[in-house]
Amino acid sequence: MQEKGLLIVLSGPSGVGKGTVRKEIFSQEDTAFEYSISMTTRAPRQGEVNGVDYFFKTREEFEALIKQGKLLEYAEFVGNYYGTPVDYVQETLNKGKDVFLEIEVEGAKQVREKFPDGLFIFLVPPSLSELKKRIVTRGTESEEVINNRMNAAKEEIEMMHLYDYVVENDKVENAVEKIKAIVIAEHLRRERVEPKYKRMLEVN
Amino acid sequence: MQEKGLLIVLSGPSGVGKGTVRKEIFSQEDTAFEYSISMTTRAPRQGEVNGVDYFFKTREEFEALIKQGKLLEYAEFVGNYYGTPVDYVQETLNKGKDVFLEIEVEGAKQVREKFPDGLFIFLVPPSLSELKKRIVTRGTESEEVINNRMNAAKEEIEMMHLYDYVVENDKVENAVEKIKAIVIAEHLRRERVEPKYKRMLEVN
Repeated sequence: MQEKGLLIVLSGPSGVGKGTVRKEIFSQEDTAFEYSISMTTRAPRQGEVNGVDYFFKTREEFEALIKQGKLLEYAEFVGNYYGTPVDYVQETLNKGKDVFLEIEVEGAKQVREKFPDGLFIFLVPPSLSELKKRIVTRGTESEEVINNRMNAAKEEIEMMHLYDYVVENDKVENAVEKIKAIVIAEHLRRERVEPKYKRMLEVN
Repeated sequence: MQEKGLLIVLSGPSGVGKGTVRKEIFSQEDTAFEYSISMTTRAPRQGEVNGVDYFFKTREEFEALIKQGKLLEYAEFVGNYYGTPVDYVQETLNKGKDVFLEIEVEGAKQVREKFPDGLFIFLVPPSLSELKKRIVTRGTESEEVINNRMNAAKEEIEMMHLYDYVVENDKVENAVEKIKAIVIAEHLRRERVEPKYKRMLEVN
């Protein structure tokens, strides 16, 4: 029996650097998981290639796919749709390969409902821990600025509870190393490994 | 507030190579956890140093420590006591440092009861996965030999259920790399990290 792959979801507040971290992961030769290319209705930017950076679709095509249930998650940003084609994800997992999604928090929430066993990683900006220092050393910023930053940080932390792991994006290399360690560890969890050994010994 | 350290317990069937893996971990410069030296009543072997390899004690001293509740776990093997002094473990964890124990399965069971939040890693021999091949390719070994190996493997698998992670000791370097990844990941678990961020933002 083929062991199913792991669905790895990287998300976090916008601007945290999810895309940069994802690109670094997939530029490394020893990365053994597959990247699920998103679908979008926005126009390709200079140098972007269909089927590499995104699957570019018209609004009509995208909405037809939504109706057909062909999207694992989708959301609309600034007038454009972004989503994850479900077939590629399912087929790749069934082949026993890990699939990596880099998506917005709203999409991650939708995926969590469909794949409760997925591996959900929340990328946080280092400002979240620098925040404490700023609050403590006061005076350098107005109370209003501090309050705004505090509230923004609190909102980010509220989103954490849907995730399994939290990685601070202080440096891209550090974040990538941590994400890779999380994936290695997840494959070694007793709950995942034990049934395999048990099945092994039933072959008799 | 000081974050408490993590109690890391490496165990597994005897002969699996726990000691070799532990020595390799502590020979690496980037290892950031503390090794808890065991206590024993057995005589020092050639080259073994008190307080480095073991704390060597007399039987009377050891039994007094048991009565005083000074051992986190202990067991008797071939007429000698082996155990883990509890004070060092507690003090080190309280300083926020990770403590690493390399102990027998019987001791690990005792530690699990006292530290349910510890990180328990079960080292398995590669023979467990080779076993399947041997069963499948039959004929090379007698049915009795296969049955004996099957039963031994089943007993090992029964012990797994108390552990959080299972690492196959195919090569010492691989096992060490996996154990280090597990420790990195464990520190990034949302349940561990979230309270820290929440406390951070309450400082106002």
